[in-house]
Amino acid sequence: MSIFETGLTPLVVNHVALSPLSFIERTAAVYGQYPAVIHGPLRRNWQDTYARCRRLASALSRRGIGKGDTVAVMLPNIPAMLEVHFGVPMIGAVLNTLNVRLDASAIAFMLEHGEAKVLITDREFHTVIRQALSLLAHPPLVVDVDDPEYGEGQAVSDLDYEAFLAEGDPEFAWQWPEDEWQAISLNYTSGTTGNPKGVVYHHRGAFLNAMGNQMTWAMGNHPVYLWTLPMFHCNGWCYPWTVTALAGTHVFLRRVEPQKVLSLIREHRVSHLCGAPIVLNALVNLPDTDKALIEHPVDAMVAGAAPPAKVIGAVEEMGIKVTHVYGLTEVYGPVTVCAWHGEWDDKPLDERARIKSRQGVRYPTLEGLMVADPQTLQPVPNDGITLGEIFMRGNTVMKGYLKNPDATREAFAGGWFHTGDLAVRHPDGYIEIKDRLKDIIISGGENISTIEIEGVLYRHPAVLEAAVVARPDEKWGEVPCAFITLKEGYRATREEDIVGFCREQLASYKLPKTVVFRELPKTSTGKIQKYLLRDWARAL
Amino acid sequence: MSIFETGLTPLVVNHVALSPLSFIERTAAVYGQYPAVIHGPLRRNWQDTYARCRRLASALSRRGIGKGDTVAVMLPNIPAMLEVHFGVPMIGAVLNTLNVRLDASAIAFMLEHGEAKVLITDREFHTVIRQALSLLAHPPLVVDVDDPEYGEGQAVSDLDYEAFLAEGDPEFAWQWPEDEWQAISLNYTSGTTGNPKGVVYHHRGAFLNAMGNQMTWAMGNHPVYLWTLPMFHCNGWCYPWTVTALAGTHVFLRRVEPQKVLSLIREHRVSHLCGAPIVLNALVNLPDTDKALIEHPVDAMVAGAAPPAKVIGAVEEMGIKVTHVYGLTEVYGPVTVCAWHGEWDDKPLDERARIKSRQGVRYPTLEGLMVADPQTLQPVPNDGITLGEIFMRGNTVMKGYLKNPDATREAFAGGWFHTGDLAVRHPDGYIEIKDRLKDIIISGGENISTIEIEGVLYRHPAVLEAAVVARPDEKWGEVPCAFITLKEGYRATREEDIVGFCREQLASYKLPKTVVFRELPKTSTGKIQKYLLRDWARAL
Repeated sequence: MSIFETGLTPLVVNHVALSPLSFIERTAAVYGQYPAVIHGPLRRNWQDTYARCRRLASALSRRGIGKGDTVAVMLPNIPAMLEVHFGVPMIGAVLNTLNVRLDASAIAFMLEHGEAKVLITDREFHTVIRQALSLLAHPPLVVDVDDPEYGEGQAVSDLDYEAFLAEGDPEFAWQWPEDEWQAISLNYTSGTTGNPKGVVYHHRGAFLNAMGNQMTWAMGNHPVYLWTLPMFHCNGWCYPWTVTALAGTHVFLRRVEPQKVLSLIREHRVSHLCGAPIVLNALVNLPDTDKALIEHPVDAMVAGAAPPAKVIGAVEEMGIKVTHVYGLTEVYGPVTVCAWHGEWDDKPLDERARIKSRQGVRYPTLEGLMVADPQTLQPVPNDGITLGEIFMRGNTVMKGYLKNPDATREAFAGGWFHTGDLAVRHPDGYIEIKDRLKDIIISGGENISTIEIEGVLYRHPAVLEAAVVARPDEKWGEVPCAFITLKEGYRATREEDIVGFCREQLASYKLPKTVVFRELPKTSTGKIQKYLLRDWARAL
Repeated sequence: MSIFETGLTPLVVNHVALSPLSFIERTAAVYGQYPAVIHGPLRRNWQDTYARCRRLASALSRRGIGKGDTVAVMLPNIPAMLEVHFGVPMIGAVLNTLNVRLDASAIAFMLEHGEAKVLITDREFHTVIRQALSLLAHPPLVVDVDDPEYGEGQAVSDLDYEAFLAEGDPEFAWQWPEDEWQAISLNYTSGTTGNPKGVVYHHRGAFLNAMGNQMTWAMGNHPVYLWTLPMFHCNGWCYPWTVTALAGTHVFLRRVEPQKVLSLIREHRVSHLCGAPIVLNALVNLPDTDKALIEHPVDAMVAGAAPPAKVIGAVEEMGIKVTHVYGLTEVYGPVTVCAWHGEWDDKPLDERARIKSRQGVRYPTLEGLMVADPQTLQPVPNDGITLGEIFMRGNTVMKGYLKNPDATREAFAGGWFHTGDLAVRHPDGYIEIKDRLKDIIISGGENISTIEIEGVLYRHPAVLEAAVVARPDEKWGEVPCAFITLKEGYRATREEDIVGFCREQLASYKLPKTVVFRELPKTSTGKIQKYLLRDWARAL
């Protein structure tokens, strides 16, 4: 044994479990009077917010909830949703945030599979929650949040959230996790097929991704963070913990309405917000007179498909700077970022948008990222051409899927997390997603990226939304089939117009052979359900 | 076992050792062309710097150096000092940075005690190094750095640093540490008495304090960091790793000369620098015409005694914002910060300086900080009056002292690190150091803080430096004895002037009973050696 190991083993004095719970204790102590929560007319500081989290932990504990127990929540972006991110893990329990757009059977599945002992729910969802509970043999204890900003709906149980908090001790001595590997939350994937899988996060990963967020985004102290991103989604990309660590202010809103978003940005001088590109789209489509009203810089972190150049240009004009990130539920939200280079600022808008649309490089808190052959795990060359699957490794990769060893083994095969996303790696090392592994079209032996075709379709002035899937073909094996939603005022656009437009920009084997005009089916998180489109294309 | 543990143990895919080595790999990949190093006329980017670190690791490895071996360095703040912070741990070896102001016997002690296999040294120190080596039975392999910015001195061995690097492979496949608890560096304390103790750091702590630095200081991306702090001191407070993580620029200088500091700040638009208050003092004492030349904001992190109001006011006028931190070698450098509140900006300068002089609150990466009774470890009340010892607990507390189990046990008694510093905790939770545990004066049964008396003495216009120690007294047990260095032009100041000045601001039992005018003895890191003053006071 080396001289640096002998007698120098970890002790309670120098090895403490990493946990985001550490953040709220510090922020409440140092910036207790600073604003923590803004929700409609409600204002609450950090001292009070911390006390409410401790009350929640205490009340749960008095009801017999403890380490390893699941507390599920069905909540929109409201202050209670922040409180559960601290109050639940404070007693070693595991937070399961349910997607509020789910139906009763999916909710019932998750409550049963996750073995939830408590369900905290908002009155808005009383109908679906009643239905879900009726499907369960052993329903959990239900606590109702009666949010004044909603003011409608019905309670599901007799136990009100505020009354429940009143049962708890605001100075409750909560427990630091014994082990940083201990579970902190459970997030079900919105799988497009099959049963949802329960992704388990731990304290170590939550702490680290929260740190990674603030560092990657250079957030500074006291950000004013607007909750346009659903907090049920990957624990709000870990921002409940990040913003708290920075003694920032959480500005809540139950529903993303563009006018509301704009007025909140103005009123509270919001500095940061996250979300799908659709949030930016909505802002861009506001009347110019409204848009001109943002008078301070705003940073927006956007995941998923990068917004087209036009949208990026329009939001930049509004004073909003877009940072493009990429991640999955399995990795705590964002873990790659299109890290910006100052010298790119001088490039023309189209070029900037093209650069920005890439998924980029690893967060400083993700240790491994590669694009490699899905079978051999051999990295592809950095040539911007060769397709491979994106693989990740690091401390912000999930513990695994709950009670699903087969899926866990498959996802982790070869010592890397298989994202299922296909990408290229550019000469500068930045990755760019080309398609989902299961979406790629193989036509006459050639790989065709559906994302590439969709990118072209989105540039057509009549196209509001577009999705491309494979359609079986006797001669070619598969051919591209496009589903398109037209903008209002462009209803007369025909298949030939679309294909003709594509012909100018795509090799002929990549041209959609069929174009279907219709609304696109989406999951509750707004993802287009390509498996349905594939079924439809097959049936054409 | 809970459902959240079963089958969800750590794997290579989701549990990777935390290590600051991760930072340079990422920065070189993402910002390879960005400036990494500025030293005199020398410019080097991140790609080249990373390649040099890998060469160093490779060259060391070829010489048989590996995991758990010690590589000592005797280097000023020059690029090689940055390179060793990555190249040495890349092969699992342990970096021992020697204080360049030490004498031969101290160096020999450290080389022997730390079992250094290699010593990398600068020509400036050839005399003392030759002497030190002559004291050793088994001297290490010596590598000489011939820094063009020095251009004098002699080599100690035949092996030149650049030639040594040339032996190495710039694409060397370095090893990620297997265990984040693995040692990364060894720092000997500049103990004022007895043999130095070897403080051992690990990869986990280095990673975390590097993260804590950037978060606490809200450093943003691409800081331009001027090395006014000795890099041999607590691994430069972990800033070699922090600045690299942020793809910043390291601006080196061998010696802190005020004019040089000023011109480097101007020329390179330095954004951040650290150091003892003496660095700021030096800047303040420059002619006004020079001072006016800083035209951009600069952030200075200062540890040790906070600068007096006058100095803080003067540096603020120069556009330098001071952040006051506190730490010790045993905790990787700074771990508490006087976290600022925006509302304090409006207070008068004296009040601001008083607030800023406090040691503050824990870093987000230090999990525990308390002021408590040295024996019972019972926390003192937050009353700003009751004295207690500062205790720390967390992931940035050292592994322990090398080959010194007794000192380690003593320092960690009761599950907390004993800092040996006495402080009060104010009602807002901020701590303020009053004295070293061993410096406090007990006079007629009353505790007297030497720091409080020194604070008053420093406000006297004639006083350049002041230190107060206990002098034995038959009647009172101990009484305060002041040692003072006068400013030029104030040589006529008498004992009565000083004591009279103090009488206006101190209770009579706290007044210095003796005043000695003379130069103050200091350690190589600039700390006043109170144990010598105590000896002299006893002999008066």
